[in-house]
Amino acid sequence: MRDSSDLDMFEVGYDIPAKPGMTAERIQTPCLVLDLDALERNIRKMGDYAKSKGMRHRVHGKMHKSVDVALLQMELGGACGVCCQKVAEAEVFARGGVRDVLVSNQVRDPDKIDRLARLPKLGARTIVCVDDRSNVADLAAAAQANGTEIECLVEIDCGAGRCGVTTTPEVVELAQAIDAASNLKFAGIQAYQGAMQHLDDFEERKGKTAIAIDMVKDAVQALEKLGLTCDIVGGGGTGSYYFESTSGVYNELQCGSYAFMDADYGRILDKDGNRIDQGEWENALFILTSVMSHVKSDKAIVDAGLKAQSVDSGLPFVFGRDDVEYIKCSDEHGVISDPNSVLKINEKLKLVPGHCDPTCNIHDWYVGVRNGAVESVWPVSARGKAY
Amino acid sequence: MRDSSDLDMFEVGYDIPAKPGMTAERIQTPCLVLDLDALERNIRKMGDYAKSKGMRHRVHGKMHKSVDVALLQMELGGACGVCCQKVAEAEVFARGGVRDVLVSNQVRDPDKIDRLARLPKLGARTIVCVDDRSNVADLAAAAQANGTEIECLVEIDCGAGRCGVTTTPEVVELAQAIDAASNLKFAGIQAYQGAMQHLDDFEERKGKTAIAIDMVKDAVQALEKLGLTCDIVGGGGTGSYYFESTSGVYNELQCGSYAFMDADYGRILDKDGNRIDQGEWENALFILTSVMSHVKSDKAIVDAGLKAQSVDSGLPFVFGRDDVEYIKCSDEHGVISDPNSVLKINEKLKLVPGHCDPTCNIHDWYVGVRNGAVESVWPVSARGKAY
Repeated sequence: MRDSSDLDMFEVGYDIPAKPGMTAERIQTPCLVLDLDALERNIRKMGDYAKSKGMRHRVHGKMHKSVDVALLQMELGGACGVCCQKVAEAEVFARGGVRDVLVSNQVRDPDKIDRLARLPKLGARTIVCVDDRSNVADLAAAAQANGTEIECLVEIDCGAGRCGVTTTPEVVELAQAIDAASNLKFAGIQAYQGAMQHLDDFEERKGKTAIAIDMVKDAVQALEKLGLTCDIVGGGGTGSYYFESTSGVYNELQCGSYAFMDADYGRILDKDGNRIDQGEWENALFILTSVMSHVKSDKAIVDAGLKAQSVDSGLPFVFGRDDVEYIKCSDEHGVISDPNSVLKINEKLKLVPGHCDPTCNIHDWYVGVRNGAVESVWPVSARGKAY
Repeated sequence: MRDSSDLDMFEVGYDIPAKPGMTAERIQTPCLVLDLDALERNIRKMGDYAKSKGMRHRVHGKMHKSVDVALLQMELGGACGVCCQKVAEAEVFARGGVRDVLVSNQVRDPDKIDRLARLPKLGARTIVCVDDRSNVADLAAAAQANGTEIECLVEIDCGAGRCGVTTTPEVVELAQAIDAASNLKFAGIQAYQGAMQHLDDFEERKGKTAIAIDMVKDAVQALEKLGLTCDIVGGGGTGSYYFESTSGVYNELQCGSYAFMDADYGRILDKDGNRIDQGEWENALFILTSVMSHVKSDKAIVDAGLKAQSVDSGLPFVFGRDDVEYIKCSDEHGVISDPNSVLKINEKLKLVPGHCDPTCNIHDWYVGVRNGAVESVWPVSARGKAY
């Protein structure tokens, strides 16, 4: 999908917000814009870091849902493959050319399990997480029926409070069940601490991750005693990757948000007490919005509201502007505080969304901009692939 | 798009969550499900009410973004047409067969204004709102260039604090400018009080609406004195339509959420102090979700999180169940409190979303269910049409 020439069949404004070659001023709003230079710098930086620590980086495709971004992360960042949360997402990445796909989630529905078992036929290494013994039998039966192999990670709930087992004996029991099942391969451990990633304080994140690392070490050692080797010990996000990278037990990172950044992640502090969007990572993702009404002198109304973003983690901020502020949000409108009435009708603002993942999930396209011109228009390939 | 036979080209799970004829148990989750009986009863009820009050009902298409639902509202509910918030939405409704379309919003971008001016060529009466004199000239120029006519409503900000003018002299000045412009037709007033719709207390909503009605009456009378007749005086939502209907000045309602209902609207109280989802309107829209993990005995994990719903107005509730509760939400997971551990893996729950509009905006399909079987699979036709 990297070649956008086929987009000539689309109508700007109706189907797509822009076309390659268009000046940035003509982009139709609201839409998602990627600063391609910043994106590429973020991707190279994380890739170099993982390499320097001898870690594989399995980028999280559920953040961007884009085959184009995933391929860029593999090309420029040396990513080994992707992880994602849904079978339908995995199908998109596999069909798009990603050959190593982890569904870092549980798959229980019989139809979904059958689709997962067919994924290797698309040429992709297929890995899934397990936290329940009854699921092992279902996965094995589907793999047998399709004549394929599914690799399985035992998921440990190391603090997120979602899926996953919480004790080493449970991990061992599941690993042995996987190892004994035909057409399944025990591949290791999934241990992503999602709840801690957004804690502002560095030491607090370090403490929560230390608990996770201890749980994982204990499980891995118990498995090794039984001759069960973990090819993959995966986890780590944008708020914790430096801890897992130096843990001596994790060997795969699963960072996603580092590539785009958002307002909520940007607020967390690094070891020196600086916001991570002030040096560690650059804002590469923006919601481009336009001023559409300014009847009240101190308030401008823009065209990006709840249908252009998810506000679950707070409102967006206006990038590069401290004279105006996004203060209120309704379905199709945003209210911008403009005390000095500096904003003009049709003036464009770049909003940094509160939370990138569910915001990207709303949009159909990424408009890639470099040097003031539209360079690429990429589909949010796995948008709507929720099943 | 009413005939779903063309959907046979799609793959259930990858492209669509279900196919017509499938039993409800096979529907792939998470997805939007419509209780077709409840939907039709809601649509007929509002249609009969508007007719009994001699009001036109211009249903709000921005809520469902569906040509199929809009046509159903016109067929069963006698709706006169639709209103929507974006030019791209208006194009979808016009192309889908809706012949009377109001963009109940400001349109300022030159490319969008040109597309709006082309809309009459699709056979649709085209109406737009105006709150700024400079916009009148732009709209007139585009209509002249395209050889079409655009009808314009002057938007009054009667309390929502978004677009719109706030005084009768401003209304009159804009109406006269529209009336004097070639290829534009002054059509009346847009006065929707969006901020008040969700106030729980009936008398509080009545008080806020009374203020809006007074503003509108004053403006309409001033216009009539100048010979400027308002063909349309539009406004009124699910939380206020009974006030506008008996105001003696409004003649068009713009209700949307009544058809689907949601958790936030459901909480508001009618004149007798009852929740409006306990008799006035039925819940017709649900997020169907499945239990995917239940390692902790008192917590079940379901597959509907932030990518299946907008939580801007709060979390969803589990329909028809008081023994379990949706208590936490992350990107792809929901945590269900299940104190008695009654939920089983793959068991399906019907969630009533906190806010229907931005939740529908996330999904590609409505799965219509009647008598336990899938009857229709309708596209969210205007999804992604944000420009």
